Amino acid sequence: MNTTIETQLNHRSIRKFSDKPISPEIIEVLVDVARHTATSSFTQSYSIISVTDPIKKQALAEIGKQPYIAEAAHLFVLVVDQHRNEMIAKANGADTSVLDSFDRFFVGASDAILAAQNMMVAAESLGIGGVFLGSILNQIDEVSSLLNLPERVAPALGIAFGYPDQSPQLKPRIPANLIHFENSYPEYTNILDTLKEYDEIVQTYYDLRNANQRIDSFTNQITAGMGRINPGRAKMLEYLQKQKLVLK
Amino acid sequence: MNTTIETQLNHRSIRKFSDKPISPEIIEVLVDVARHTATSSFTQSYSIISVTDPIKKQALAEIGKQPYIAEAAHLFVLVVDQHRNEMIAKANGADTSVLDSFDRFFVGASDAILAAQNMMVAAESLGIGGVFLGSILNQIDEVSSLLNLPERVAPALGIAFGYPDQSPQLKPRIPANLIHFENSYPEYTNILDTLKEYDEIVQTYYDLRNANQRIDSFTNQITAGMGRINPGRAKMLEYLQKQKLVLK
Repeated sequence: MNTTIETQLNHRSIRKFSDKPISPEIIEVLVDVARHTATSSFTQSYSIISVTDPIKKQALAEIGKQPYIAEAAHLFVLVVDQHRNEMIAKANGADTSVLDSFDRFFVGASDAILAAQNMMVAAESLGIGGVFLGSILNQIDEVSSLLNLPERVAPALGIAFGYPDQSPQLKPRIPANLIHFENSYPEYTNILDTLKEYDEIVQTYYDLRNANQRIDSFTNQITAGMGRINPGRAKMLEYLQKQKLVLK
Repeated sequence: MNTTIETQLNHRSIRKFSDKPISPEIIEVLVDVARHTATSSFTQSYSIISVTDPIKKQALAEIGKQPYIAEAAHLFVLVVDQHRNEMIAKANGADTSVLDSFDRFFVGASDAILAAQNMMVAAESLGIGGVFLGSILNQIDEVSSLLNLPERVAPALGIAFGYPDQSPQLKPRIPANLIHFENSYPEYTNILDTLKEYDEIVQTYYDLRNANQRIDSFTNQITAGMGRINPGRAKMLEYLQKQKLVLK
């Protein structure tokens, strides 16, 4: 074990931040870490947008229905970016229709998401806390307009960073033997029984967002989630196709 | 700066490994790190498959056309996993048709890819080297059969880990000001000119895979990549839909 891994095993999403700003030098380091992340076939098919404009931060907080987004010391939005590559290839006279493909979208999404996790680890190693904002996908079209994203570009994930003003409990995860398999995906028999012990562990966890009530069991949360269809999210594929991504 | 960030900034993909095995204790730590990665709405919509069977390793090496895949000390395939969640919800009598959506696929892909990067950082902090294997998507259907993936499950990314038997140069990345923007995506004017200096830097990098020749400029690589359409990758969306993912 070492300090890197200790930090990783100690990950908690932080949603309440102190007033302390994050220095420009640290922002530069985080971007540098992102840039040094592995990238598919060296294409670097992603970009990073820092959202510093208070009006835009507030807009993102409203879209995500999470006031802490506006209060974060720094907000990043990582985007799938095949626009830069398209501009390059077109300047060289190449046909760029391959960018219509699911594959090239996924390349960009992988690049963006790998970079996002690398930034998270770097920030946490510096005592900064953060939370990934999948919520920016709730109204992906509005976020896209807010950041002036051209065709072939789409939001993948947001991150809110700041110095922590809370210390949430470590959230218990699915036991290793139920998420890590060898050579073959297993067949589940009686999944609720299999997860019974884990369900009990989860119920002893108090979520700071609802400090006074225990959270529901894992299997109940998963079941309830099936009925929780965000109308904005349901339009994600439509949006991506408008951006000329995932057309085939 | 600290050792975590130093390791991150020093990332190189490792494709040549020594014979030294990775201990079961370390594999356990890597899985533990993956499990502690942030997960969208606490759904943990991914799974990890260790590929240890030499026949399956060889098959993946042939699919990826990369012999070093079979030689890695440890192979992981991270998969989008909405099957476990579906089993849970169905056992509780819920309608699971929301899992047809692009959104729920993307949730699982994000979970898998974030976890993959976290494992990479942990491994590198222990002196292990690795490389992400996007190549497992080249024949995604065959990989899926090889690992017996059920519906609602799909490969996202592979990782080959081992102790390094090479020390590649650090690959120069796009300068920060061309990949990190503030509040708004920029408009490029004359992109080839903008990237001219970076192109020259890239051309001074020697790729160990072709030790005797300089690699092409970044913009030429991107341009050439537009014509490089892998027939297997072109079927990714078709495969995902067969797995009952990304149907709407």
